[in-house]
Amino acid sequence: MLLLIPGPVATAPEVKAALAHDFAPWDNEFREFTVRLRARVLKIAGGVEGEHAALPLQGCGHFITEAALRSFVPPGAKVLIPATGAYSDRMVRLAREAGRVPVTLPVAQGTRVDPASVAAALADDPSIRHVGAVYSETGSGVIHDVPAIGRAVRASGARMIVDAVSAFGALPFDLSAQPETDAVVFTANKCLEGVAGAAFAVARIDRLREGAGQAGSWSLDLADVLTMSERAPGSSRFTPAPQVLNAFNTALDLYEAEGGQAPRLARYTANMRTFYDGMRALGLTPWLSPEIQGPIIVNVHAPADPAWNLQGFVDALKRRGVLISNFFNTPTPTFRVGCIGAVTPADMARAVEAVGGALHELGIKERRAA
Amino acid sequence: MLLLIPGPVATAPEVKAALAHDFAPWDNEFREFTVRLRARVLKIAGGVEGEHAALPLQGCGHFITEAALRSFVPPGAKVLIPATGAYSDRMVRLAREAGRVPVTLPVAQGTRVDPASVAAALADDPSIRHVGAVYSETGSGVIHDVPAIGRAVRASGARMIVDAVSAFGALPFDLSAQPETDAVVFTANKCLEGVAGAAFAVARIDRLREGAGQAGSWSLDLADVLTMSERAPGSSRFTPAPQVLNAFNTALDLYEAEGGQAPRLARYTANMRTFYDGMRALGLTPWLSPEIQGPIIVNVHAPADPAWNLQGFVDALKRRGVLISNFFNTPTPTFRVGCIGAVTPADMARAVEAVGGALHELGIKERRAA
Repeated sequence: MLLLIPGPVATAPEVKAALAHDFAPWDNEFREFTVRLRARVLKIAGGVEGEHAALPLQGCGHFITEAALRSFVPPGAKVLIPATGAYSDRMVRLAREAGRVPVTLPVAQGTRVDPASVAAALADDPSIRHVGAVYSETGSGVIHDVPAIGRAVRASGARMIVDAVSAFGALPFDLSAQPETDAVVFTANKCLEGVAGAAFAVARIDRLREGAGQAGSWSLDLADVLTMSERAPGSSRFTPAPQVLNAFNTALDLYEAEGGQAPRLARYTANMRTFYDGMRALGLTPWLSPEIQGPIIVNVHAPADPAWNLQGFVDALKRRGVLISNFFNTPTPTFRVGCIGAVTPADMARAVEAVGGALHELGIKERRAA
Repeated sequence: MLLLIPGPVATAPEVKAALAHDFAPWDNEFREFTVRLRARVLKIAGGVEGEHAALPLQGCGHFITEAALRSFVPPGAKVLIPATGAYSDRMVRLAREAGRVPVTLPVAQGTRVDPASVAAALADDPSIRHVGAVYSETGSGVIHDVPAIGRAVRASGARMIVDAVSAFGALPFDLSAQPETDAVVFTANKCLEGVAGAAFAVARIDRLREGAGQAGSWSLDLADVLTMSERAPGSSRFTPAPQVLNAFNTALDLYEAEGGQAPRLARYTANMRTFYDGMRALGLTPWLSPEIQGPIIVNVHAPADPAWNLQGFVDALKRRGVLISNFFNTPTPTFRVGCIGAVTPADMARAVEAVGGALHELGIKERRAA
């Protein structure tokens, strides 16, 4: 089965094989392993030893996003969140329920966040000292210009948290060039092609120390993760998912073997292009125009044909060996396909063929957007 | 390597093999799988369909414990926590940092919580409406009488949360007989012999609904997990660790094949007895007397011999193929061994032999407690 969802992604056989071991997480060997793993993650983020720390957290992207909001934004403080789509909405809810005050900044559908609008919002309300930005919006598929947003934040003297969950490892990211960024957060199971169960923040050590004690949750306190990592390098505060971490380390071996970020982005871009062009050739309409389409996720407008039914389409694709999401995260009906994971343009060509076959089977003649 | 830590435990080859697959967590097949898995967990807890719900949460035991405290104890409310050891201390910290007010109840070292003392504490301060109790104290190895504590809580009209992390599946637990219990929490990687990365609460549905909106954390809100499970059965709010869940399901197959709770407890008890008696035969002193020693964890007093060094001892054991914890959670120095996981009395006999060999290698002659 060809898995084409925006994560958890299809993984390489080596990654799956690395799961099949028992580990004692506090054993010295595993602690040394964890120290090396954190150093690898720090390097991919462009973090600077002694200035930034790679902090692992059990669980998923929402957990690490909430942890970053709690650890850097004081209770009751405002955080400006450009409304890029489903994942900025989620950051808004995470912030609000954690007792922070999200302030949303409207973003026109199908466009990138305008850094000038961020600067203007920060100038209009000087009480906003924090910005939360989504790098790759999993809802829409749009990639936002995080370095440019960061420059606007920096110019205003505010601080930024970057949700890079569906971007990290494929899209370029250099924390050393973004001093305004308190933390970039991501998980093992997207563009780095590990399995789900481990999340990471790469964060500024000075800012973590400044905010120590404000998280309001021991579980989700990144300052405490830092304290533990300094007191007992490689030790986890609580039981980690060691199999997931071991598989992630193998995934990073494969990442390095592929050549790292640029070749991975090139492969994903070729994946996306194969699928995107294939959809247009089938008479379907991608959600985004080519110039704004990112390499991670392609949404395609649901066809206008009355025979269209998302679950029926997903089932027909599955019978053809291709598994896509059975829901959409766009304001109007779409189907969505992930272009990431251990998949190649040849796989995407197979997926295009499967879409063609499924549309034919379901009798979808009117393929323009509903 | 024979892994003898209190978790993550040694797992069966079938469990490890079940990790090596890719999954789409929101696919209908995986959703149906999750519905069945939750039903299995509900049944093991003695939960009643329609009255209780088995709620999965990504991550570790601390996360699910914090989630239960947040979801059932209102912000600013008191929660009485019998001070059984390292894990009750952790519950105290989780509660305090989440803005609840822990009230500790002293418990004499090496004794079980006296239910009468719980009743007295609740009578003394009627503003305490919640109790948080540890079933198997991983720090000491003492098993507490949760049903008896529950009766005291019930008589006083208060509510209880049970941390059964290192107990669940081996020690008997029947939620249907404990109407005062709002939730029992545990993880996949202890007595149920799965791998780490998935936690569960089995909780009262009515009480979850009453407390909806009070968690103060979207990530750790069990009422919201319930809402999702009702709106879209089998769907996860956020990316779960599907490999971990699949391995856990296989672990439950093996649990059923073994005969469930009673045979598992019998095996662990035989494991503990083999090790406990073996330690005494070597001249060492277990931390607990035989009548209070639980079947999950054996702590052994560090020998008085000046040549004793915990890490050196752990390393010497490791050279003999046995891996134990390199830290202790008791007030005075000990070494600790887990008696749980896919291990048998024959394995424990091998561990006893390895301890004898390690003590000899290190020249530990004075073996009485330091």
